Amino acid sequence: MGIKQKVAVGLVILSSYMSYAYADDTTAIQPFSASKAIDLTHVLHEDMVVWPGGVPFKKIPLATHEKDGYLLHRFSMGENTGTHVDAPAHYIQGNLTMENLPIDQLILPMVVIDAREQVKSNPDYELSVQDINNWEAKYGKVPANALVVLNTGWHEKFDDPKAYQNMDDKQVMHFPGYSPQAARLLVKRDVSGIGIDSFSLDYGPSTTFETHLVMLKANKFQVENMANLNALPAVGSTAVIGVLPVKGGSQAQARIFALLP
Amino acid sequence: MGIKQKVAVGLVILSSYMSYAYADDTTAIQPFSASKAIDLTHVLHEDMVVWPGGVPFKKIPLATHEKDGYLLHRFSMGENTGTHVDAPAHYIQGNLTMENLPIDQLILPMVVIDAREQVKSNPDYELSVQDINNWEAKYGKVPANALVVLNTGWHEKFDDPKAYQNMDDKQVMHFPGYSPQAARLLVKRDVSGIGIDSFSLDYGPSTTFETHLVMLKANKFQVENMANLNALPAVGSTAVIGVLPVKGGSQAQARIFALLP
Repeated sequence: MGIKQKVAVGLVILSSYMSYAYADDTTAIQPFSASKAIDLTHVLHEDMVVWPGGVPFKKIPLATHEKDGYLLHRFSMGENTGTHVDAPAHYIQGNLTMENLPIDQLILPMVVIDAREQVKSNPDYELSVQDINNWEAKYGKVPANALVVLNTGWHEKFDDPKAYQNMDDKQVMHFPGYSPQAARLLVKRDVSGIGIDSFSLDYGPSTTFETHLVMLKANKFQVENMANLNALPAVGSTAVIGVLPVKGGSQAQARIFALLP
Repeated sequence: MGIKQKVAVGLVILSSYMSYAYADDTTAIQPFSASKAIDLTHVLHEDMVVWPGGVPFKKIPLATHEKDGYLLHRFSMGENTGTHVDAPAHYIQGNLTMENLPIDQLILPMVVIDAREQVKSNPDYELSVQDINNWEAKYGKVPANALVVLNTGWHEKFDDPKAYQNMDDKQVMHFPGYSPQAARLLVKRDVSGIGIDSFSLDYGPSTTFETHLVMLKANKFQVENMANLNALPAVGSTAVIGVLPVKGGSQAQARIFALLP
């Protein structure tokens, strides 16, 4: 093969090594201090709500205390069951897969937008550009390289599958999300990712998933089914997103902590 | 039912709520500051080494970019596949299960003992009480409520399943662990948990898993198959153990970060 092909092959080999190599290194993160933590993760169990038609979480015993003297299970789950992260590759072929999300994007400042009042009167509420403008008027510009989290209050319904899906007679779900316009503004702000305490970044009736497309095309990640957002401050906390580093994964379960000074 | 039964039922109901309630609260953790991070987690993929007879990690496509315009998988795995945490209930019925590990034990100071030299000449090396005494002479007493991590160098073999299992002609594995005596001393120090970069806290040839029994009886957790330990300082880092909060789980996958000042 010619020199050009050799260089091309060399780059492919190098990049396949690089996808692991980041993990060996000490990575600079945005500095913070912590003395308190909040768990933003729903407990995983067999009766938890899943997206209609989705794959539920299963824990199958392989050994038991009674028979074997120890307890062992295997797990089975849809990659989007429970609190989880969407990698950009979920929608966009060639964009980042789960194991390649940079560490400094998984440990990062978090800003929280409260839309509980709007959602109370409209379960189909979509976060608007005006909502972000209002937030910025109070707290300053949404910072680059942050995780934006939308507290819709929907996380309080998680243990009631019917209320969380909130499906109408035509099998259309009704829950809040981000409008595509708001997502575009947050891409412009160059956030690392956005999160929500409902099923999806796109509101329940969506059929085009435009907010997903806006974020994932821009190689931004997403967090869905977040828990326990009420105690979070609007600014000043750090998110640690302990997402499973699945090779080639498009989504994966995560344990997520908020750390506070 | 009588008043005693009513109280008993009330306590059972209360404790079942409490197993979730911790997550709603802000929990005090041992204060720290951070500006750097190291990923202590092996990437999850289908060819990764598993315990002999164990359940490998599988990622089964449910939708693809080509056919469906998006990528979706389901996962299947043994609860002990890859970097994972053992809850005390893994061996001891009635002890803590995965979802009940307190948050202030999942975000905690980490101390690192380096046994790479000893393991080089003896793959069956077990950390001794003398090793801990030597460490304490240099760095001070192992602190209570810390995670102790043993760097045996074995994590460097993880991508070579044969070398990681290191099985002899009689199907006996050879890799390093903690001696039960060392485990007893660490329980006396009241650590929260211990971790290692090999398959098990007990060394390869073990048939009695006595170190497991010592730790799990004392309601201490364990971390196995840790990655990338070489860059960790002996003292001064904080571990964030992003373990999946599986209800009733005895072990579960974790994304683990070391945070450094």
